[in-house]
Amino acid sequence: MQVPKASDVLADDLRERILRGEFREGTALPPERELVTQTQMSRTTVREALRILEVQGLVRIKTGRSGGAFVQVPGEESVASSVSLMIRGRQIRLAALLETREAIEPACARLAARYRTDADLARLAHADEAIAAEEGSLTDFLRANVDWHVAVAVASHNELLTGFISALSEAIYTSTDNRGFVDAEVRRVTAQAHQSITEAIRGRDADAAFRRMTRHVHEYVQAVLEVEERTAIDVPGS
Amino acid sequence: MQVPKASDVLADDLRERILRGEFREGTALPPERELVTQTQMSRTTVREALRILEVQGLVRIKTGRSGGAFVQVPGEESVASSVSLMIRGRQIRLAALLETREAIEPACARLAARYRTDADLARLAHADEAIAAEEGSLTDFLRANVDWHVAVAVASHNELLTGFISALSEAIYTSTDNRGFVDAEVRRVTAQAHQSITEAIRGRDADAAFRRMTRHVHEYVQAVLEVEERTAIDVPGS
Repeated sequence: MQVPKASDVLADDLRERILRGEFREGTALPPERELVTQTQMSRTTVREALRILEVQGLVRIKTGRSGGAFVQVPGEESVASSVSLMIRGRQIRLAALLETREAIEPACARLAARYRTDADLARLAHADEAIAAEEGSLTDFLRANVDWHVAVAVASHNELLTGFISALSEAIYTSTDNRGFVDAEVRRVTAQAHQSITEAIRGRDADAAFRRMTRHVHEYVQAVLEVEERTAIDVPGS
Repeated sequence: MQVPKASDVLADDLRERILRGEFREGTALPPERELVTQTQMSRTTVREALRILEVQGLVRIKTGRSGGAFVQVPGEESVASSVSLMIRGRQIRLAALLETREAIEPACARLAARYRTDADLARLAHADEAIAAEEGSLTDFLRANVDWHVAVAVASHNELLTGFISALSEAIYTSTDNRGFVDAEVRRVTAQAHQSITEAIRGRDADAAFRRMTRHVHEYVQAVLEVEERTAIDVPGS
């Protein structure tokens, strides 16, 4: 039988109060010694509870004279980091990552065409330029690729999708590095596909954005899987 | 200037070793006293590091004689819980939740049609029956609704999408409870839509599954938003 830990009980209580809006973003929770008095729990327990909230992205702990546990609202980063942990921990295959991207990004491009601002367009244009730079290294290209996909997600103005796609793109980046299939032709085709999707987003053409992104991510999957098959033949029994 | 905390340094190190597969799932990390000896850190610090890993879903801590910190691999639940924290913390509106579902579920239904097993079909059929039960309460109906959407996600055999959709469905369930728009007609239409999507999944018809799910979630969004508008008119200035 597992008895709930005191620090979990306190963390649960503080978490509920933060999520209900009792402590506003940017304000400090009651100081440690006050929580000790209020709860009759030990200093170690109180500290542990605050650390749990910190790990969950609900407070930022600052030390020193004007220190304390400052409330923050969990954002895209906390979703992205849990998705990353799952991808690494479960060793989710590249094929499954690409499949997930194929499932989400077309709809994301459609939302981007609907909700993009001028700042979003500037970010997309910047990523488009970086990806078209022929003299760039493979790493530069792959990095610019991630930036562009994240920029589309940001332009959707949907925080949930943005968090999810950021983690996915990073994981795909990590798995694609050093792969043999990114040659000059792949780079040219990718730059072209990105530009035409950016154009659809700029022109607020939601259907074209959806359709072009569908084709782009699908073609990318095909290209990767072809290389995977070749690799599988190169290394029999693997 | 923030100096990294000793417990974070130790947690980072252990996390990397778990993710690299040095400690297998189900095995125990070295006991607390051994980690104290190895790292020269205090018992409190070591304990805090283990608690951090527990909060992140990387170990399960058991107390008692055969206790210890047992390695587990973060799964759908950890993605679902970070998504839930973000939804609650940022007070993400129902409209944004529905938009996200609209973006993801059609593709999920397509994957389900491709990869569903007989066990998946049994689970879907069970949820279909529960939702068609006319004598059920509103809560029963909404619960069966969540079960069906999660069952479609599970049938996609994509753990990332399953984690994401579980959290979304729970959040939509919480926000929809007690809303006025679920009448007998909505229940009838929903049961019918679910059954026709289940049929497409059973028949491995990926295109029909995608198309029908697109229509279903879109119609649901329209129904909810109509009520939202009416509510907005009922309560002027809100």
